[in-house]
Amino acid sequence: MQEENLPDVVDGLDGRNFGKAVCIITGASKGFGRCLAKEIASLVKPGSVFVLVARSGEKLREIEVELAASPAGKAGLITRCVVADLGVKNDVENVVREIRATASNSDINQLLLINNAASLGDISRFARSFTDLHEVNAYLSLNVSSALCLTAGVLEAFPRRQDLRRCVVNVSSLCAVQPFPSWVLYCTGKAARDMTFNVLAKEEPDIRVLNYAPGPLDTDMQVAARTISGDAGLKETCVNMHAKGQLLTCEESCSKLIKVLLKDEYQSGTHLDFNDI
Amino acid sequence: MQEENLPDVVDGLDGRNFGKAVCIITGASKGFGRCLAKEIASLVKPGSVFVLVARSGEKLREIEVELAASPAGKAGLITRCVVADLGVKNDVENVVREIRATASNSDINQLLLINNAASLGDISRFARSFTDLHEVNAYLSLNVSSALCLTAGVLEAFPRRQDLRRCVVNVSSLCAVQPFPSWVLYCTGKAARDMTFNVLAKEEPDIRVLNYAPGPLDTDMQVAARTISGDAGLKETCVNMHAKGQLLTCEESCSKLIKVLLKDEYQSGTHLDFNDI
Repeated sequence: MQEENLPDVVDGLDGRNFGKAVCIITGASKGFGRCLAKEIASLVKPGSVFVLVARSGEKLREIEVELAASPAGKAGLITRCVVADLGVKNDVENVVREIRATASNSDINQLLLINNAASLGDISRFARSFTDLHEVNAYLSLNVSSALCLTAGVLEAFPRRQDLRRCVVNVSSLCAVQPFPSWVLYCTGKAARDMTFNVLAKEEPDIRVLNYAPGPLDTDMQVAARTISGDAGLKETCVNMHAKGQLLTCEESCSKLIKVLLKDEYQSGTHLDFNDI
Repeated sequence: MQEENLPDVVDGLDGRNFGKAVCIITGASKGFGRCLAKEIASLVKPGSVFVLVARSGEKLREIEVELAASPAGKAGLITRCVVADLGVKNDVENVVREIRATASNSDINQLLLINNAASLGDISRFARSFTDLHEVNAYLSLNVSSALCLTAGVLEAFPRRQDLRRCVVNVSSLCAVQPFPSWVLYCTGKAARDMTFNVLAKEEPDIRVLNYAPGPLDTDMQVAARTISGDAGLKETCVNMHAKGQLLTCEESCSKLIKVLLKDEYQSGTHLDFNDI
């Protein structure tokens, strides 16, 4: 597959693509992460490598099969699946080890890391009930620490190089900038992550860093939001958004993100929301 | 000591004070926390209880002696010191236990919790070097989780009551809203905490919540900032602020915070910076 043959899946990009890439996506087994894997796979050159990370090995294998059968797969896309719970040190290190192995024998010109894995935490309760340090720590380990540590490990595996473009995406949320009642862990984690990547952008001017809030997606997370949110008002808002068909498909939001990445005009470190683009 | 006899330590407050209070201050053994303990002690009524928390028992005992010898101490202020490493679950629970004991036999009309304890993390390194999940987790446990869990524990010990004013302060920083290179843990933690308390404010309209950024204080933290900051530009800025006498004394910033708390006109959950008041 040559560059000119890459499909223009995103309108108005005149065939722009990610070149020969190593693309790492966490939380890749479902929802937004899975969608990203599929769409980005159609925008890379042969010899590119995808490292897909998730807790569920079964679902990862499904997408591996799907990618192998896609035009990209047939043209030589390599997919590596790593089953990992990113809240656990050993698992983060295993992912980094897999990425190092990929780095050692690749002549890529694009590194794309998408920190997408996240959990909601218990949204049925209010902040005043979070008295258990271990519960909060476990949440922050998966949702904040692992994003920093994985990013650091990936950047170490792919150090600065003249002809290597490095891009790191943090899948953020409106919750990073707005407090939502009964979503204290999620809001805290997303605010923390935005800042982590904002600092990274400040420190590493040669790395492109984006905090992307994908908008309200029609995924499992929204099912939880409208069924178990502790705050009645927020729950109702989520029920209404769903009823009125206001939730976005993963594909819609994914396309917008890819467009932003390929256009490459955003300010590094910025927080971009689907609705503001 | 009667209300009319309380000194007007903060100009322009016409003798306003915190009434009969339970005041909990973390990181109370030195710097801003210690200063707050002393100043607030002069603004409470007899029978008030101070719970001072820090890692160093020796320094806590110093301030206990100091408070006992002060007019407030002579008038009946009770000081309880709890030696605790707030990054550790057992220690957080010990602090909450002490506070419960205080709550069980007190007829106070003001609860004041000041989440001041914090650490800088390793500011000599850049984000790309933070590959160790345990290091980041330990930082977040002390600087984020403990603030949430302690606050939750305190609010559980002092539930909503008609004649009880409850106020929670998060000692924040400019770093909560601005990325500082080589300060990734500190910025991440402060951004996270601001959001935690912002959510709390949203959830609990009867609790007064303030994120207060005290400005650049002439404390141990600024010594570290100007000597070991990994980012040369930031380090120089800190060196210059110190050389030009631009650092604030703890007393200056403390007075401003107390004024804001006693005036009680801030929007709950807001981020207020010393320099913006």
